Amino acid sequence: MSTKQTPVHQALENYAAAVHAKDVDAFIALYDDDVHIYDSWGQWQYAGIEAWRSMAGEWFSSLGDARVRVEFNDVRSVSGEDVAFGHAAVTFAGISAEGERLRAMTNRFTICLEKKGDGWKISHEHSSLPIDMETGEGIFTS
Amino acid sequence: MSTKQTPVHQALENYAAAVHAKDVDAFIALYDDDVHIYDSWGQWQYAGIEAWRSMAGEWFSSLGDARVRVEFNDVRSVSGEDVAFGHAAVTFAGISAEGERLRAMTNRFTICLEKKGDGWKISHEHSSLPIDMETGEGIFTS
Repeated sequence: MSTKQTPVHQALENYAAAVHAKDVDAFIALYDDDVHIYDSWGQWQYAGIEAWRSMAGEWFSSLGDARVRVEFNDVRSVSGEDVAFGHAAVTFAGISAEGERLRAMTNRFTICLEKKGDGWKISHEHSSLPIDMETGEGIFTS
Repeated sequence: MSTKQTPVHQALENYAAAVHAKDVDAFIALYDDDVHIYDSWGQWQYAGIEAWRSMAGEWFSSLGDARVRVEFNDVRSVSGEDVAFGHAAVTFAGISAEGERLRAMTNRFTICLEKKGDGWKISHEHSSLPIDMETGEGIFTS
């Protein structure tokens, strides 16, 4: 990841650190209370920080003693005075307690941020995979 | 759609009008030359206005004498001085030459805009459907 400290790069760096640490509070601190998320999996949206906190808690506790290493590629960032956005290819790699890479998946990832009293917060996030129009199935890459 | 004329609402209104008119030039005029798109279908991304213009040309000409009515719901918009973003549920409804509603599909839709010399332009767009983690299939709604 770039060392450029735009609000987007900073948020992505903190996102990767919080996921690796499986730290729900650090993860949730990245988001605005009124956050809105279109996530890749299972449901239309998440609205509000409590719904997103539940997702994070379930995700991290489902990992057992494994961890997830998050890598961002093709990062692009646009920052204004108090509104910013960025997008990237995000790879989630499962790492066993012994440090072995178990599996990986890459998603498309967009974050939209607002500058609030306590700094930049993600107020909208959209992650997805493209879908094959013929089969209706997600197109998975890693 | 709301009558609030934020950059996001204006872009959505112009998007719907250009699609209904099957007007490639009006559609492409909404976007920055350096646009980046994560679209719902078939491929990872579109980079640059020419790739996106080809998509639009193929889409509109595939419709024959049918049209597409685009409706946005749950629109949320955040605007700064020269950066803005918004998201919505977008429904694409096919309308026959006789005015009959043929079929419809709703996608999740995020647009990110920058104020350029000739006004607000969409420089990033992300549309998708959530995917069922068990089956790997897109979750379709209409």
